[in-house]
Amino acid sequence: MQNDMKLFTLNSNRKLAEEIADKLEMPLGVSSITRFSDGEVQMNIEETVRGYDTYLIQSTSEPGNEYLMELLIMIDALKRASARSINIVIPYYGYSRQDRKARSREPITAKLIANLLESAGATRILTLDLHAAQVQGFFNIPVDELRANSLLSEYFLKKKLKDIVVVAPENAGTARARRLADQLDAPIAFIDKQRTAETTSVHGINIIGDIKGKSAIIIDDMIDTARTVTSGASALIDLGAKEVYACCTHGVLSEPAVSRIRDSDLKEVVITNSVFLPAQKQDERIKVLSVGTLLAEGIRRVQTNESVSTLF
Amino acid sequence: MQNDMKLFTLNSNRKLAEEIADKLEMPLGVSSITRFSDGEVQMNIEETVRGYDTYLIQSTSEPGNEYLMELLIMIDALKRASARSINIVIPYYGYSRQDRKARSREPITAKLIANLLESAGATRILTLDLHAAQVQGFFNIPVDELRANSLLSEYFLKKKLKDIVVVAPENAGTARARRLADQLDAPIAFIDKQRTAETTSVHGINIIGDIKGKSAIIIDDMIDTARTVTSGASALIDLGAKEVYACCTHGVLSEPAVSRIRDSDLKEVVITNSVFLPAQKQDERIKVLSVGTLLAEGIRRVQTNESVSTLF
Amino acid sequence: MQNDMKLFTLNSNRKLAEEIADKLEMPLGVSSITRFSDGEVQMNIEETVRGYDTYLIQSTSEPGNEYLMELLIMIDALKRASARSINIVIPYYGYSRQDRKARSREPITAKLIANLLESAGATRILTLDLHAAQVQGFFNIPVDELRANSLLSEYFLKKKLKDIVVVAPENAGTARARRLADQLDAPIAFIDKQRTAETTSVHGINIIGDIKGKSAIIIDDMIDTARTVTSGASALIDLGAKEVYACCTHGVLSEPAVSRIRDSDLKEVVITNSVFLPAQKQDERIKVLSVGTLLAEGIRRVQTNESVSTLF
Amino acid sequence: MQNDMKLFTLNSNRKLAEEIADKLEMPLGVSSITRFSDGEVQMNIEETVRGYDTYLIQSTSEPGNEYLMELLIMIDALKRASARSINIVIPYYGYSRQDRKARSREPITAKLIANLLESAGATRILTLDLHAAQVQGFFNIPVDELRANSLLSEYFLKKKLKDIVVVAPENAGTARARRLADQLDAPIAFIDKQRTAETTSVHGINIIGDIKGKSAIIIDDMIDTARTVTSGASALIDLGAKEVYACCTHGVLSEPAVSRIRDSDLKEVVITNSVFLPAQKQDERIKVLSVGTLLAEGIRRVQTNESVSTLF
Amino acid sequence: MQNDMKLFTLNSNRKLAEEIADKLEMPLGVSSITRFSDGEVQMNIEETVRGYDTYLIQSTSEPGNEYLMELLIMIDALKRASARSINIVIPYYGYSRQDRKARSREPITAKLIANLLESAGATRILTLDLHAAQVQGFFNIPVDELRANSLLSEYFLKKKLKDIVVVAPENAGTARARRLADQLDAPIAFIDKQRTAETTSVHGINIIGDIKGKSAIIIDDMIDTARTVTSGASALIDLGAKEVYACCTHGVLSEPAVSRIRDSDLKEVVITNSVFLPAQKQDERIKVLSVGTLLAEGIRRVQTNESVSTLF
Amino acid sequence: MQNDMKLFTLNSNRKLAEEIADKLEMPLGVSSITRFSDGEVQMNIEETVRGYDTYLIQSTSEPGNEYLMELLIMIDALKRASARSINIVIPYYGYSRQDRKARSREPITAKLIANLLESAGATRILTLDLHAAQVQGFFNIPVDELRANSLLSEYFLKKKLKDIVVVAPENAGTARARRLADQLDAPIAFIDKQRTAETTSVHGINIIGDIKGKSAIIIDDMIDTARTVTSGASALIDLGAKEVYACCTHGVLSEPAVSRIRDSDLKEVVITNSVFLPAQKQDERIKVLSVGTLLAEGIRRVQTNESVSTLF
Repeated sequence: MQNDMKLFTLNSNRKLAEEIADKLEMPLGVSSITRFSDGEVQMNIEETVRGYDTYLIQSTSEPGNEYLMELLIMIDALKRASARSINIVIPYYGYSRQDRKARSREPITAKLIANLLESAGATRILTLDLHAAQVQGFFNIPVDELRANSLLSEYFLKKKLKDIVVVAPENAGTARARRLADQLDAPIAFIDKQRTAETTSVHGINIIGDIKGKSAIIIDDMIDTARTVTSGASALIDLGAKEVYACCTHGVLSEPAVSRIRDSDLKEVVITNSVFLPAQKQDERIKVLSVGTLLAEGIRRVQTNESVSTLF
Repeated sequence: MQNDMKLFTLNSNRKLAEEIADKLEMPLGVSSITRFSDGEVQMNIEETVRGYDTYLIQSTSEPGNEYLMELLIMIDALKRASARSINIVIPYYGYSRQDRKARSREPITAKLIANLLESAGATRILTLDLHAAQVQGFFNIPVDELRANSLLSEYFLKKKLKDIVVVAPENAGTARARRLADQLDAPIAFIDKQRTAETTSVHGINIIGDIKGKSAIIIDDMIDTARTVTSGASALIDLGAKEVYACCTHGVLSEPAVSRIRDSDLKEVVITNSVFLPAQKQDERIKVLSVGTLLAEGIRRVQTNESVSTLF
Repeated sequence: MQNDMKLFTLNSNRKLAEEIADKLEMPLGVSSITRFSDGEVQMNIEETVRGYDTYLIQSTSEPGNEYLMELLIMIDALKRASARSINIVIPYYGYSRQDRKARSREPITAKLIANLLESAGATRILTLDLHAAQVQGFFNIPVDELRANSLLSEYFLKKKLKDIVVVAPENAGTARARRLADQLDAPIAFIDKQRTAETTSVHGINIIGDIKGKSAIIIDDMIDTARTVTSGASALIDLGAKEVYACCTHGVLSEPAVSRIRDSDLKEVVITNSVFLPAQKQDERIKVLSVGTLLAEGIRRVQTNESVSTLF
Repeated sequence: MQNDMKLFTLNSNRKLAEEIADKLEMPLGVSSITRFSDGEVQMNIEETVRGYDTYLIQSTSEPGNEYLMELLIMIDALKRASARSINIVIPYYGYSRQDRKARSREPITAKLIANLLESAGATRILTLDLHAAQVQGFFNIPVDELRANSLLSEYFLKKKLKDIVVVAPENAGTARARRLADQLDAPIAFIDKQRTAETTSVHGINIIGDIKGKSAIIIDDMIDTARTVTSGASALIDLGAKEVYACCTHGVLSEPAVSRIRDSDLKEVVITNSVFLPAQKQDERIKVLSVGTLLAEGIRRVQTNESVSTLF
Repeated sequence: MQNDMKLFTLNSNRKLAEEIADKLEMPLGVSSITRFSDGEVQMNIEETVRGYDTYLIQSTSEPGNEYLMELLIMIDALKRASARSINIVIPYYGYSRQDRKARSREPITAKLIANLLESAGATRILTLDLHAAQVQGFFNIPVDELRANSLLSEYFLKKKLKDIVVVAPENAGTARARRLADQLDAPIAFIDKQRTAETTSVHGINIIGDIKGKSAIIIDDMIDTARTVTSGASALIDLGAKEVYACCTHGVLSEPAVSRIRDSDLKEVVITNSVFLPAQKQDERIKVLSVGTLLAEGIRRVQTNESVSTLF
Repeated sequence: MQNDMKLFTLNSNRKLAEEIADKLEMPLGVSSITRFSDGEVQMNIEETVRGYDTYLIQSTSEPGNEYLMELLIMIDALKRASARSINIVIPYYGYSRQDRKARSREPITAKLIANLLESAGATRILTLDLHAAQVQGFFNIPVDELRANSLLSEYFLKKKLKDIVVVAPENAGTARARRLADQLDAPIAFIDKQRTAETTSVHGINIIGDIKGKSAIIIDDMIDTARTVTSGASALIDLGAKEVYACCTHGVLSEPAVSRIRDSDLKEVVITNSVFLPAQKQDERIKVLSVGTLLAEGIRRVQTNESVSTLF
């Protein structure tokens, strides 16, 4: 396998890329991605890729526009350097929430980015837990979407919590919650927001479903500013939940997510390393699981033409 | 406006097309769509379309493949006859549930169809309540998605029901339910399916949320075989709901939907005429609201370059 | 060869597909193509195709729209499942008579379908006796068109008929007739239709050329309703032909073809199994030759990069 | 109309272009198409085309490659100069006989050229009597194909010939012959070539059909080297035809066509000016009809969005 | 004109956009481009653009990736909101120096960006003094490239300098220097860099051409870090030039350009406002000319279908 | 390597193709490219290319339109014959000077040709010394541009000339001159044209830089009519150069280049065989170096996936 493929990373998440390379027992390709004095990306691929299947690892996490442009420019360089295939490994697909027009005259940026990637020359996408699975259909090239939910459920199973309820946030994500609940053999509930007052309302939030005395696990695909999960946690506690966890695949954790989490009723927040978590954001209450083995196995199967389906 | 545009229909829903033409105070274009002896579509556009903005009305309802091929062939004919623009008015977008790979090696047929429509020559889509809003992003041409929820909420507001709860079916659609609930100033609940037994389970179904003594309105984007809404209705009644309505935009009503509804605990099922309801499926418990005015107004605004956004 | 390729069939002609698989000494790939309750195609490919050259056998015979949609959907599934190539084996290319605008504002459906197949992701077409060879040029991907005329000429040579004349039907197809006539060492004639009366006219039909006392073989690329060949046969007999055969590659045989043939002056109608002939259409006067060996050999040569040219 | 459009010509047939401009009562746009010292085309459009519908007249007759490149380069210039539409008026579509693979590993040059024209930026084709009508389907942009057959039939009707037979050349073109025969109220015959000797064979040629004592009119879409029509004429005369005419739309007349015609049994050869006939090729036996009025009317209708269908 | 078009700006150069709007006597369209908490672009177009010709002003100056993504996202929004045309006014085209592979395995980012803009939906480019005119050919849509050299030459003509020499920097740009020299009726020289020592070398720089006692004007398309012009100025002064000016269209002025200019032998640096110059970079020795009138006139001519050619 | 690839040539430069084949120790593929009587290209590939990597050698030198059409038609034939890849080896890329709009409403023919090649089906370009390196960016497929400058510098180094100056022609090409000068360890000068009289002007030409008593080598990418180099040589001699050489990669040598060279002050003109030099243009003063080894090595490396970068 290693004779036919080369693995490259860009700047968003070098540590994860190194872990993947480790698992695949092959080196990361040598390239340098620096900046000119005016901030333009300067790209140098330092070894031949002619005729190779190339895998390029990059999350389009913050700063997303910068990381996306790095990705597009490197795809162009690989295409012009005659790579046989250009497989984009994108653990966190940024802009994925802009996947439809919520109002008139909005862009559908998640689709725009799909078009840009294809236009630049990508020949396959390997990604993880898209915000909406329909984003697969934004592409005309094959998309392999891996799922981190087994990582999450295994983590919680090990905790041997009793009387769990899985909670979906804000009028969406009940399918995701149901999936985790099935793995944990638990019921579900969800957080509802309504304009009018209700008896069960705490902090303007209703909880639909039975959560009294239970260990609640809020699950979402990503946690950005952590407003939803922290206010949800407060409501759950106030309404009688015993303890509250939150988990997600993508720990975006924009300001002021970390301080909110620190000040919250959340016992623990479980995320993965699909988005790189810098030192200053690390916290004892934030548990990071690695998707390195999962992605490495996904790459291996793609390259050796094995089925990826049993991975999720 | 009428000098620049022509309105055509195909075979799926001529009655709705006639209603739209009526509202727009213009005739339907003359064309015949018949079949050759071996079933191939024979198309004749009987008047010039050269330089006109054309609007072509067709739902890809059952038999969906036939109606889709009619649509694609007519688009080809319009393109080759030098129509200035080809605007597809597709009240019901068939195959919309196939919008992602739920399992490995599945097609994403809703995306395939988007590609086929663009490849044939469509220049715009005007549609109604897509199964997932993300399907907008399957297209590179403009998509105007209208919403029938005001029709539904107005209908229920007129009924002056008391103590309403809006119910989302099967671990999805809580956003849609919340939207209707906001219009009716009501709380929401949802129907959950789990593999393990639960105290609230009736017919293998849990209801999450408070429905006791309430008038429950189940809302979905479409009702196909009616299994979900009828079993949901039974559960709701068994668990203490006062009465149960169901509503949706697209009354697909495949066999045996109508007999299921007739035998169910549902008081009324409210649908629209986005899918044509043949005489043998009509029933006093099935109320059909017309989207004719809504679609006619959508077409008028597109043609006169007014904003469509205030329509939804 | 078998290690790199997989052979699949859809629903139009499973028997021919099985024969092809037999000749290639490899199994048909496991897939199921069923229907949802509303008639939408449900597709499941049950084995990995990642990295394989795939061959997909489907005639777009009646019901052509259904079989075409099956084909397009399966192409989409194969593409998204990362097949290395998607080779469409389409023994009978439906809609092939719609290959030009005969009147204003007609579609060119044969071209539309070429575009749809390419848009879906087909990478090669292997077909048999197109209605017009120019349809090859509707594609930008390679098209290998095989010819069944050797099958037909060998069949007639074995009959050791004497004094043959090959007859082209209705002001077209003289090149095809000439080709068969060369193989049978025979002269040609053709059937002409004119508005004005002529001495040689029988049933409104002229025969141009010498057919007296001869064994006439009418050849066409397809026989659909059989009106042309049966009325041609009557005219030939009335004008002195000794006996009349008809032959073609594609036995479309739409209603009422079979009863017309049964009631006709035709001694025998020779067709191939490019279109599946259901039991109720089988008749002792209809002889079906198999193109299984021809197509299997075509597939084998494509896969092993041998020249296909000596096959025709 | 003249305010919105501009008419340009290139070098293949300036006289016809001037006639078209005359009929449309508008000037030809000012442009110069010269050559650099190494033969490369130098193009200057000397007036603004920004926002105009442009019509560009060019036959790709001999030297076809040169005239085609002129055409492609001017399309590029018009596109980059922001013409609103680029309508190609191509009275004679060169390479049209290369419309399918007659043998393995042949190009389909007629399709290639269609792709090149679209790729360069053409938005519509207006042409005349394609070699095969299927070439329309090589394009994804609208093609309006005009027909010169009324010009030809009117010319022969004025001659008041008696006892006409229309003759199709070489195993093809019987549909075209039938069309002219219908207009002249005449029967048809055709010229057949076979490898084996036959009693009716003269010069290796068979005539199928009754031509004795008749005025024969051979019709083809184009006359290139005139071998077919002149040898056909000899055979017709030898077998008893009273006199022989030949006619076609496209008088390609490659060497040695004119001398062959001069030395032949043909009484007259009727062509149109779709291909420019230089002085040295003019001959009293070659009658040239003008398609100027027909093409001018076609352009006028396209520009004013009238139906072109009644023109043919 | 104002009835058919709308003018929008993004964030790179609002002041220039306002000046352009002023000259065109029309308002800037209302839109807001903000950021989500994780830095993703949030776009709202607050007025209808349906059917309008839209003009979108944005330089892709530093931070270029951010401004480019803003541009692409707004193009997507305009396309989906049914704008009739999307004209990109890009006074400074960033990444334009990456216009070829200088080394193996480099990207051609200037081409990538052209592809991205077209893929997003841009229908025309209006730009100013590209680094290489060949970048026009990176696009398949029309590109109108305006030139600021008249602004520069008029400015210097007003100074009434005597005995001018125009100097091209670093082995390139002699054509640009020649053009300015023609307008100022002056000779040219150029700055050469060589590895080996030469008698005329100062600071490792040769000046080829006669500059003694002259007023030297160094001209380039852009000044980035100002290293070239400041070291060139030193060499020119040391070799006997009387005084040295520098000018360019695009004042990129990356760090430490401004301090270098302050510390240099340059008498004045003349730039335009194609790139926004923030207050902290302004200096009495840096003279900024406005391209607002030029761009406004370019937009006006494009919209009214007048020739843009006389503008340069 | 030879098992996977086939090498073909067209008519522009068979001798170079044979040399390349020789170096690669493999035969040229058998094909015939002739003309029909009307000048249309007739193409026959006489051996299978199915599944092969094909390399097609053709310069688009005079007659450029003819050679370009040969190239496009053969690409179409290779594509339809299922070649695995179609690599165009184009030693001289004609029309390369038309790489931007120098005036309004000009085409960008060099880009048009890039589009035509891609549209026809080319998958890679291998070329030599483009007029502007930016032409690489006209393509979306990989372009490998080789450079002949080492051939030229080695040739001059062997001459052991003393006191060399490398001269760039006409306000452009100083970068190319600098590159050669670096290899020869020499200074540079350039030829300048100005409208106003100057003391150094001879024949309306200025020489900027020191050339007195030196051996001047004028370098350009191509020599077409030789006007520039011969008049430059006169000026150099008149201004005191000891002797003058000219060199370039592409010896286009259109009329009257050869007679101009014969009558000139040039001691020798050094070109390569990228353009075929017919016998009547050969002259003792014109030295032709072969790029056969360079191109053969380029092809070998492309086919064996080695880096091409060390070749230039």
